Amino acid sequence: MNTIQKLEALFKQFPGIGPRQAKRFVYFLLTRNPSYLEELKSLIAELKKETSACQSCFRYFPNAKIKQSLCPTCSDQTREENVLMVVSYDVDFENIEKSGAFKGKYFILGGVVPILESEPEKKIRINELKKSIAARKSKGLGEIIFAFNTNPEGENTLDYVKEEIAEFAKVNNIKISTLGRGLSTGAELEYSDTETLKNAVKNRQ
Amino acid sequence: MNTIQKLEALFKQFPGIGPRQAKRFVYFLLTRNPSYLEELKSLIAELKKETSACQSCFRYFPNAKIKQSLCPTCSDQTREENVLMVVSYDVDFENIEKSGAFKGKYFILGGVVPILESEPEKKIRINELKKSIAARKSKGLGEIIFAFNTNPEGENTLDYVKEEIAEFAKVNNIKISTLGRGLSTGAELEYSDTETLKNAVKNRQ
Amino acid sequence: MNTIQKLEALFKQFPGIGPRQAKRFVYFLLTRNPSYLEELKSLIAELKKETSACQSCFRYFPNAKIKQSLCPTCSDQTREENVLMVVSYDVDFENIEKSGAFKGKYFILGGVVPILESEPEKKIRINELKKSIAARKSKGLGEIIFAFNTNPEGENTLDYVKEEIAEFAKVNNIKISTLGRGLSTGAELEYSDTETLKNAVKNRQ
Amino acid sequence: MNTIQKLEALFKQFPGIGPRQAKRFVYFLLTRNPSYLEELKSLIAELKKETSACQSCFRYFPNAKIKQSLCPTCSDQTREENVLMVVSYDVDFENIEKSGAFKGKYFILGGVVPILESEPEKKIRINELKKSIAARKSKGLGEIIFAFNTNPEGENTLDYVKEEIAEFAKVNNIKISTLGRGLSTGAELEYSDTETLKNAVKNRQ
Repeated sequence: MNTIQKLEALFKQFPGIGPRQAKRFVYFLLTRNPSYLEELKSLIAELKKETSACQSCFRYFPNAKIKQSLCPTCSDQTREENVLMVVSYDVDFENIEKSGAFKGKYFILGGVVPILESEPEKKIRINELKKSIAARKSKGLGEIIFAFNTNPEGENTLDYVKEEIAEFAKVNNIKISTLGRGLSTGAELEYSDTETLKNAVKNRQ
Repeated sequence: MNTIQKLEALFKQFPGIGPRQAKRFVYFLLTRNPSYLEELKSLIAELKKETSACQSCFRYFPNAKIKQSLCPTCSDQTREENVLMVVSYDVDFENIEKSGAFKGKYFILGGVVPILESEPEKKIRINELKKSIAARKSKGLGEIIFAFNTNPEGENTLDYVKEEIAEFAKVNNIKISTLGRGLSTGAELEYSDTETLKNAVKNRQ
Repeated sequence: MNTIQKLEALFKQFPGIGPRQAKRFVYFLLTRNPSYLEELKSLIAELKKETSACQSCFRYFPNAKIKQSLCPTCSDQTREENVLMVVSYDVDFENIEKSGAFKGKYFILGGVVPILESEPEKKIRINELKKSIAARKSKGLGEIIFAFNTNPEGENTLDYVKEEIAEFAKVNNIKISTLGRGLSTGAELEYSDTETLKNAVKNRQ
Repeated sequence: MNTIQKLEALFKQFPGIGPRQAKRFVYFLLTRNPSYLEELKSLIAELKKETSACQSCFRYFPNAKIKQSLCPTCSDQTREENVLMVVSYDVDFENIEKSGAFKGKYFILGGVVPILESEPEKKIRINELKKSIAARKSKGLGEIIFAFNTNPEGENTLDYVKEEIAEFAKVNNIKISTLGRGLSTGAELEYSDTETLKNAVKNRQ
């Protein structure tokens, strides 16, 4: 394989990128001026250097100067310590954080547990989560919110994580909750599924 | 206009049907055998004769033999009398009823109040709703659930109907509620809007 | 089944209409005023009476007053007699006619031959086509254009009809042609398939 | 801006990439192992070094070892010299070449002329095209095929390039042609536009 084909092959691994778009990316780069390529190259080189995974929530955050072990959210002392939201991905954290809907702490699992997965502990940070919960106990953790996509993989992840955490939570009197189900913005009653309608009636307010 | 064009014009008024599909409908009918057309014609002729609008909830229901004034749901004495669900359309009623999520009584408004509508009382059965609520008071009505689409027209309908009903509900100690908001089935946190996320956190369970 | 369900069942047979839209159609009719329903009913009743299938091209045309056996296109003496375009559907005829691209005569097969169909002669008017071609010979027919969709069913129809007609056409020195292949309006070279590109190069002009 | 945001900003410039996918790309890279990032970085660094723009057709081609001025297609002596196909993009070249529809030489303009563009000569390699045509005259060039998308920008490019070349082509007896228009694979007659139908009838075969 030549350089064009090798780069195409790498771009094809990018999320959501097929062979045609991978090819377009290469031609796009070929028509950029040298300074663009130079910047892209050095940003890729710096990315991991200037970014850390937070020791507490495991999300990636920019951490260029003084090497810190905690991300700004985890080191923010104004945030509530008694409630922990567990999400799958960094982008889930970002979107929830942008909404301003939550003022507690987070934990990023780093993935989902696929249906029929035989080694779920290799797909997500379940052991790190257990340690995190144990450590938070002394800081007054009273509730864990599981915030997963409501699709089959998210539901499967929920089932697995709940079971892994249940005993510890019970013994330590920590409440386990999941995000409220119901009508999302823009929903039409004519087309809503049974599960959504049942939750919408149950959670009426 | 000839018969083909006139029929096309009528089909174009059907919900969701554009000029091309209206034309296809006419050609479809031209290739049917006479018995199909005869049946279609007589069903259209019978439709209103054999269907009534319920005197209580205003939905359409088959009512061929003994002419009854109440639909099966309204005359079902096992259903809860103390809670009334107000919906926009017959299809909303059907979908909620199919889900089995609700065991009380219904009222069908027959439409929505468009944004900036100057005569909302001509768009929906607001006066009939008021009468219905007044009549249900003596039967122990304790809660009215507004079940509208969570799109702009549905929200506008909610605002209007709530205001019209508020005084009477307050005086008579009737609770007003709306369907629970939150994550619908299949929702992804990365793409959920702020309103949905806020409700999902608030209504966690 | 009650009237509502029976009418739903008929509407579900309309081209492109699923169960939900069939239901919407019924509720739509229930909310129409009586004059709309009356008009719909009588237009359906009149449709076949006031419409004929042309004895020559077999398309449906409005034919209310003097019962004529030929449609306006077939009886138009200014149209070219020496070229016949064979299409699958009335809507194909209408769209080609609207484009003004063709000034000869037409024949409507009334369908397509599905892949692996064991009785193709029951799917399309192949015998009527043969008779029509034989009759047109004396009027100077010199070319038959097969104008079918370029999808698998259209290609299959083309193969079948061509074979059925080939001998007669050869003996009588009638040219057989198909619509030109190439780039359609809006086509992008990056996404065009091999067949289209080959034809586009071959038919360059 | 931190490294994550800077890299997001660069990815947003990639063709077809919006803010959300740009963000996903960055998180994707953060979760890759160092060898993937190292390879990506070095391929980007090598891309321009190991790739040249062909001196004749101007397309990019891998050119690692002996630095050659001509791409394999341009230096292939078995290809026809008498016909030149002019395309907008490298990906157009690739797709046409993959189809095997053309055996002559190519010229890549490197872009399109947008509607109402005041400086078309800055958008495409029009001067290089003129030189190329002049040089090919002595090699027996007899036809130039313009192979552009049949969308408004492609048509506009065609108009501009044709006018720029017309005089030279006429004087030197070089035929100018464009790719054949007609039904593309999968086209349906009911939905085909007038322009396509006219061409399909005209180019019937």
